[in-house]
Amino acid sequence: MTPADYLAPYLPPRLEPVEAATAYAPANIALAKYWGKSDRVLNLPANGSLSISLGSHGSRTTIRAADADSITLNGVLAGEDSPLHRRTFVFIEHIRRGAPQPLAITSENTIPTAAGLASSASGFAALTRALNAYWQLDLPDAVLSALARIGSGSAARSLWHGFVKWDKGEQVDGSDSIAAPIVSDWQDLRIALLPIDSGAKKTTSGDGMNHTTATSPLYAAWPATAARDLATIETAIHTHDFTTLGATAEANALAMHATMLAARPALCYLHGASLDALHRLWQQRADGLEIYATIDAGPNIKILYQRCDEAAVRAAYPQAVFINPFVLAG
Amino acid sequence: MTPADYLAPYLPPRLEPVEAATAYAPANIALAKYWGKSDRVLNLPANGSLSISLGSHGSRTTIRAADADSITLNGVLAGEDSPLHRRTFVFIEHIRRGAPQPLAITSENTIPTAAGLASSASGFAALTRALNAYWQLDLPDAVLSALARIGSGSAARSLWHGFVKWDKGEQVDGSDSIAAPIVSDWQDLRIALLPIDSGAKKTTSGDGMNHTTATSPLYAAWPATAARDLATIETAIHTHDFTTLGATAEANALAMHATMLAARPALCYLHGASLDALHRLWQQRADGLEIYATIDAGPNIKILYQRCDEAAVRAAYPQAVFINPFVLAG
Repeated sequence: MTPADYLAPYLPPRLEPVEAATAYAPANIALAKYWGKSDRVLNLPANGSLSISLGSHGSRTTIRAADADSITLNGVLAGEDSPLHRRTFVFIEHIRRGAPQPLAITSENTIPTAAGLASSASGFAALTRALNAYWQLDLPDAVLSALARIGSGSAARSLWHGFVKWDKGEQVDGSDSIAAPIVSDWQDLRIALLPIDSGAKKTTSGDGMNHTTATSPLYAAWPATAARDLATIETAIHTHDFTTLGATAEANALAMHATMLAARPALCYLHGASLDALHRLWQQRADGLEIYATIDAGPNIKILYQRCDEAAVRAAYPQAVFINPFVLAG
Repeated sequence: MTPADYLAPYLPPRLEPVEAATAYAPANIALAKYWGKSDRVLNLPANGSLSISLGSHGSRTTIRAADADSITLNGVLAGEDSPLHRRTFVFIEHIRRGAPQPLAITSENTIPTAAGLASSASGFAALTRALNAYWQLDLPDAVLSALARIGSGSAARSLWHGFVKWDKGEQVDGSDSIAAPIVSDWQDLRIALLPIDSGAKKTTSGDGMNHTTATSPLYAAWPATAARDLATIETAIHTHDFTTLGATAEANALAMHATMLAARPALCYLHGASLDALHRLWQQRADGLEIYATIDAGPNIKILYQRCDEAAVRAAYPQAVFINPFVLAG
């Protein structure tokens, strides 16, 4: 099954562009992580995941007609041979299908770069929404989600604000591997981004998960663990149980890193400073400050806390970037 | 099944001491790690393990009759309420069984303390051999090994020099969970102990493995992984294949630490400096120096190398302690 096969029924025979279209999508941080693909072409995950979107921190993307394809990110034009240009227009071609409609794409990230937060999720989500508007596709939410996922797995979750669940799905065409927002009135969760190293990592997340699934003897236990954690966190959101949400999100992230540490050879996105920060955080928690860590495929730490502890967390981590994910305008 | 049940057939009705008995046992470093108990009283392991003994680095223990039980370690008399005193004489009671024969035990470690190497393995192995001599028990090797194991799991392996394999065993009485030397003429392996922190750890190995087996969702995959690694390393010893031995030992140790990182809450013996040292070692290996790491339940790194690289490893790690495990006299 290819993306073209899946998308064909939803796309019009002729693409009818508007003059320009702009869309925004927030970055997101997974509380129950996605790690491992069951299909590398469709980006189907080995496990479901659940995230919190970062409100006003994300990507804003505009599409206009042009004489030649181009993408400008944060004011910098990407070379035609750059990975960004290639990956973007390979993705767009799933919709454009050879139509002679070159595009000029401009995208701005409002994600704090010092914290080394991934921008591909919000980038592909914003691009998906912008393409939908530019060509007046009027795609259903489920198809938008599947399309964003094909661009970058976790982009499926960045289409929405708040808590978002991406179901693993069962269908081989990925039609049910889609993300959707979780209805919740709980707005106590806060996030501090603790920068450790904002440099480029040696191994992309995609390569990292493929290496892990192929070589880590502990990976076999991951998908079921991830499914249980997702269910626990979803319930904690509904019951406003921060302790369960935080402890489970931290354990889930560390289990993901553990599967990598057991890969052969080992894959370790954590730096020594990441581990020092974790030990410090655990001591602070033992001392009474209720904070939890989550870590994506990189060295930086994301601290989960509640709004009641805003002052204490700011005092403990003066170097961090503090995010209220429920503030939607920057 | 209790230790008493197992030992009863091998012990004489009356203990007949000699005047004094002294025995030596080397420390050991597991190349295929033991992590997890299937029986906490008999110290039966969830998986087999394989070690290299450290030659002249170990424990020398002397037993004499006395008016009251005492144990003096490295010249320091342990208090009667100390864990060392209690653990030692609880162990001895498996043999003494209430007989009115108080003992004065003195033990000296020749293990480099700066590297934070565990001494309980060589300590209980030397004590086992000294008791065997003092009371003229003439226990078979298998029973010596089972007895040492009851004192401290990995002590079973410290009864012998060179490469030693401790079989998991299948019997509920532990009678086949015994260690024995591997016959090998390969003497190229060298070990550098890289000190990170020689302070006491917060969680003992025993508590750490019990917490891991009880709470880590990744632990389920460990016993089979450990069994495969043991077989791979044993073959590598017979074929003198250092690359396979080193890579497998490193991966095995990291898989063990990965099971702990996934415990709930996480158990992490590694410090930030341990991880920094690992990243540095991986870079050195990528640059052509064939070295591998193994790490026990603590922050310190043990580097595996071959005698042909002695000079290069000494130059790269001037702060390390260098051990030729095949030199038996200090």
